[in-house]
Amino acid sequence: MTAKKEFPLAQVYGLLEPGPVVLLSTTRAGRMKVMPMSWHLMMEFAPPMVGCMVSSANYTFEVLRKTGECVINIPTANLAKKVVACGNVSGESVDKFKKFGLTPVAASVVKAPLIAECYANLECQVVDRKLVTKYNFFVLEVVKAWIDPRRKRPETIHHQGEGVLFVPGRTIRLPSPKTSFLTT
Amino acid sequence: MTAKKEFPLAQVYGLLEPGPVVLLSTTRAGRMKVMPMSWHLMMEFAPPMVGCMVSSANYTFEVLRKTGECVINIPTANLAKKVVACGNVSGESVDKFKKFGLTPVAASVVKAPLIAECYANLECQVVDRKLVTKYNFFVLEVVKAWIDPRRKRPETIHHQGEGVLFVPGRTIRLPSPKTSFLTT
Repeated sequence: MTAKKEFPLAQVYGLLEPGPVVLLSTTRAGRMKVMPMSWHLMMEFAPPMVGCMVSSANYTFEVLRKTGECVINIPTANLAKKVVACGNVSGESVDKFKKFGLTPVAASVVKAPLIAECYANLECQVVDRKLVTKYNFFVLEVVKAWIDPRRKRPETIHHQGEGVLFVPGRTIRLPSPKTSFLTT
Repeated sequence: MTAKKEFPLAQVYGLLEPGPVVLLSTTRAGRMKVMPMSWHLMMEFAPPMVGCMVSSANYTFEVLRKTGECVINIPTANLAKKVVACGNVSGESVDKFKKFGLTPVAASVVKAPLIAECYANLECQVVDRKLVTKYNFFVLEVVKAWIDPRRKRPETIHHQGEGVLFVPGRTIRLPSPKTSFLTT
C-alpha cells in the first residue's frame, strides 16, 4: 500500500455516490472473503455512513454479521472480468484472493483486508443492524479511507444489469452554491 | 405520456443500480414538490424495492412521510442544469415545476406526478419507516414503472461531488451465468 494515501473521510461520499460496483472484503477465523456488490448508498457525509445489501444467501453475510467489519474496495475497468468472475463462485470452498490474483493488504482499523489492486479502500464497521434480518441491509460507518493519488480519472464500473457495465464518460461541471444540493 | 411505455418491474434494478441522480416528485394538498436525489440503492428485484435518503431539512421529507407516496424520475444530461438548480431552491415558497419548466403528468397508481421530461418514471409507495427518524432513510416499493422506449442509450447523470457529474461512457459486456452476480 505504499502507493496509497489516506483520504479525507468527509470526501468519501464522492467515491460512492456515482454508483460504482465495489468489492466487499471480510475476514473471520483466518479466512478472507471477497464479493462484488452494487447495491449501496451514502447515508451521511461525516462521519461517512454507507448502507448496503448483502444477501443472506452469500457467505459474506454471516461473516459481516458476526465480525461487524468489512472493507469497501473500489475497482476499475481493468478488474471488471475478475469482479464478475468473483460474483459467480462461492467463497465457501474457494480462496477468491488466490484464484483471481487479488492482493490482500492489512488495514489500519479493521481486521478485513484492503485489496491492493483497487484504487480506493474504505475500512468500515457495522453500526446498525435493524434492517438486517428483514432486508439484509447493513448500515456501515467508514472509519478510515485510502486512495491511490496517481489515479486522476479512475475508470469505475457501473452495472446496468445482466453483465452490462459502463465506465464514466463525458464530465459536466455545474458549480453549485450548495455542496449537498442532491441530498439535503 | 403518449411516448412512454410501461416498463417491466423486474428490470427496474438496471435503471437505478448504476447510480444516476434522480428527481423525486411528491404532492400534498394540491401542491407538487420536486427535489434531486442521489443517495439511493436497490433493495430487491421483484417487487422492486428502493432505499433512499431524504433529509429532514428538505420540504419533501414531510410530504413523503405524510403521504407515503412519490415518483422517482430519471433525468438525462440535457436536464442537468435544471436538476442542480432544483437542488438550490426550497420548494416551500417556489413552484419548481413552473420555475424550471418541468411538466407534471398524472401517474397511474400514486398521486405524485410523473415528470414528462425524464426518460423513466417509477411510481413508489413507502413500505418501511423504521430508519426514517434516525437516518431519514425510507424504504420504497416500485409499484409501476414507465420508460421512453425511443431512448436507447440515455445519458443519465452521476454525481462525483461538488457539482461534478459524468454521463455513461464506454460499455463493457461480460455475460454472467448469474444475473445477480453483484448482489447475491
